Amino acid sequence: MFDVILERIVTQCPGSLGALIMGFDGIGIEEYVVENADLDLTLVGIEYSNVVKEIRNASDILKVGNLREVSIKTEQYYVIIQTLTEDYFIALVIERRGNFGKGRYLLLRESFELKQALS
Amino acid sequence: MFDVILERIVTQCPGSLGALIMGFDGIGIEEYVVENADLDLTLVGIEYSNVVKEIRNASDILKVGNLREVSIKTEQYYVIIQTLTEDYFIALVIERRGNFGKGRYLLLRESFELKQALS
Repeated sequence: MFDVILERIVTQCPGSLGALIMGFDGIGIEEYVVENADLDLTLVGIEYSNVVKEIRNASDILKVGNLREVSIKTEQYYVIIQTLTEDYFIALVIERRGNFGKGRYLLLRESFELKQALS
Repeated sequence: MFDVILERIVTQCPGSLGALIMGFDGIGIEEYVVENADLDLTLVGIEYSNVVKEIRNASDILKVGNLREVSIKTEQYYVIIQTLTEDYFIALVIERRGNFGKGRYLLLRESFELKQALS
């Protein structure tokens, strides 16, 4: 079921390279990567799961409410991370010429079903 | 000059609460906060400067190109962080009902002048 949702997000978002569902402990549940993507999605997830955990801690200290989303723009990619539950997040990697807005929308659209499955 | 630019960004972005220019070492150059804002902007800067530094490190490890922007959405706020130089970033805090897209545009619009002044 997770694989179907991830594939749907990636194939519907122009420029999308891959998506994964992972625990904040860096252990992945499922991932979907397009063919020929020059990208180690698991490594991306592990690296960013740590920083998102720290952003969550910072947000707790600052009392700004629960963390919902982190978007990272580098020279080459957009990475959109949305928290699903206390323990899990979903991440989507998009090329810079891809459709960032649509990616964010697709993650939100699927998050309800994912949250129910994970809680 | 920094104070004028920060004030211009904050007053032109609906729902904006404050903006600051800070070093990645957590030492601020300048900040502008609207009156009655229930927000310790310096603390926000210090907390997030650490995580942005870690995102930068993660991006180096992943070889995804230089970090340009990090956007954080919590239950109460948007925080937009754009790197200006190797050493400095600008951050803008916006209420959730504020205009995130305009905030991002205003930061980009002013960043050329800021980069020149800081390098």
